[in-house]
Amino acid sequence: MPSAHSLSYAQRAEKHENPAARLLLETIIRKESNLAVSVDVTKSEDFLAIIDAVGPLVCLIKTHIDILEDFDYGLIKKLEELSQKHDFVIFEDRKFADIGNTVALQYSSGVHKIASWSHITNAHPVPGPSIITGLASVGLPLGRGLLLLAEMSTKGTLATGGYTEEAVRLARANKKFVIGFIAQRRMDAVGLAHGDNEEDDFLILTPGVGLEVKGDGMGQQYRTPDEVVRQSGCDVIIVGRGVYGADFKNVEAIRARAEKYRQEGWNAYLKRVES
Amino acid sequence: MPSAHSLSYAQRAEKHENPAARLLLETIIRKESNLAVSVDVTKSEDFLAIIDAVGPLVCLIKTHIDILEDFDYGLIKKLEELSQKHDFVIFEDRKFADIGNTVALQYSSGVHKIASWSHITNAHPVPGPSIITGLASVGLPLGRGLLLLAEMSTKGTLATGGYTEEAVRLARANKKFVIGFIAQRRMDAVGLAHGDNEEDDFLILTPGVGLEVKGDGMGQQYRTPDEVVRQSGCDVIIVGRGVYGADFKNVEAIRARAEKYRQEGWNAYLKRVES
Repeated sequence: MPSAHSLSYAQRAEKHENPAARLLLETIIRKESNLAVSVDVTKSEDFLAIIDAVGPLVCLIKTHIDILEDFDYGLIKKLEELSQKHDFVIFEDRKFADIGNTVALQYSSGVHKIASWSHITNAHPVPGPSIITGLASVGLPLGRGLLLLAEMSTKGTLATGGYTEEAVRLARANKKFVIGFIAQRRMDAVGLAHGDNEEDDFLILTPGVGLEVKGDGMGQQYRTPDEVVRQSGCDVIIVGRGVYGADFKNVEAIRARAEKYRQEGWNAYLKRVES
Repeated sequence: MPSAHSLSYAQRAEKHENPAARLLLETIIRKESNLAVSVDVTKSEDFLAIIDAVGPLVCLIKTHIDILEDFDYGLIKKLEELSQKHDFVIFEDRKFADIGNTVALQYSSGVHKIASWSHITNAHPVPGPSIITGLASVGLPLGRGLLLLAEMSTKGTLATGGYTEEAVRLARANKKFVIGFIAQRRMDAVGLAHGDNEEDDFLILTPGVGLEVKGDGMGQQYRTPDEVVRQSGCDVIIVGRGVYGADFKNVEAIRARAEKYRQEGWNAYLKRVES
């Protein structure tokens, strides 16, 4: 089998068994967009305004629901309405990182009830297999998908080498629920013993993407859509402030920037599958 | 300097600069208790009932505020009142694990506003130094302290070897804010180059402690207070359901179990410093 990233999104959508993975791939195809926007604001009004602005141009909205200081559950209904209106997938970037019992509660319960509305969430593999078991006990019956953090884009991250390999092995052992990685490159060959031939198709969602900026002064490092999608074979680019800027009411400017990222990301993908 | 765990809690309290570390050590001394109770329930009523029951016997209450489904900020006031009434330290076991900018928002903002009430919180070192910078920017001005997860008690954890060593190095480089570790043993010699002689006094808080049970079926493994405090030199034992059981209204039974753990933990400490 050819490596997943040489296939088209459409070919990959057909083969994926996990409903959330399939939904994401089909949304990418419908909208010709592998752009995800990460909405990192603390007020619900800004949160909804940004999502309504970028909605038509993205395949996915990434949320940090726990930074919204005026959160109430009514917001979730509005988020779901926007998801229907603009046709995007929701990914709560919770970075679960606890033992199985605890993450099952954090995922299903609390004021945020993440599992009930977020198609995709993510977790650090650091606790070992129990974190996947715990999350899957909640998410699989709901048709959700999980991304593992195999790498991070921050300076001095400990998610390297053997850690990354072990993350990929954990994903392979839990393919029904683990649909891919937050990472900076393909993971197809990572953690395989010599002679192994796994037919994986893990989705790679990549943060730390920018067209201009080089860092945020707090350890975040940036790469361009072409580097990420064409050169490194990643599937979805995640952009934050680079798209929505500082004026959340300027819909036109936000859409113009989102469209620029969408084009760059999509062209990088077209070049990748043509080559 | 002798290794920190051969000193008494009182000797160590005098030397600690971080206010949260000092508060914890002084509370341990006042109450002759190195017992922390982890309150992992989803209803505010049960949460407060358990804390009121165990409060007199613990040095610290560990919370997962994000699993409370009926959370509202009024609960925090009640938690703080109990903390005053029973004299215990609050530790929100948030396991922050994101980049600096994001954790700063998660710590200070959202509906939970953790930094404003939790004396101590914790983080995974996996993102690298930026997670400490981000959290310290919020927590240090408030006199808070951070624990790093250098190890985990779950089966198959990736927090081993070089990962653990790097976690300890990160802590040493950030001693003003990082007051210790969630771990299963002393970290004094970990990650030191040959000939280094660091005068560290990191507090070791240890989950996975039980008197009888051996596991929760979801990857958690248990050790006794004596193994943890006397043999491994840890400072605080963290116990959950082993103390509060399944009947949250049975104050007497809960207190009896807490008292048993308190005695076991304290005796293990006395044996340690006497030897």
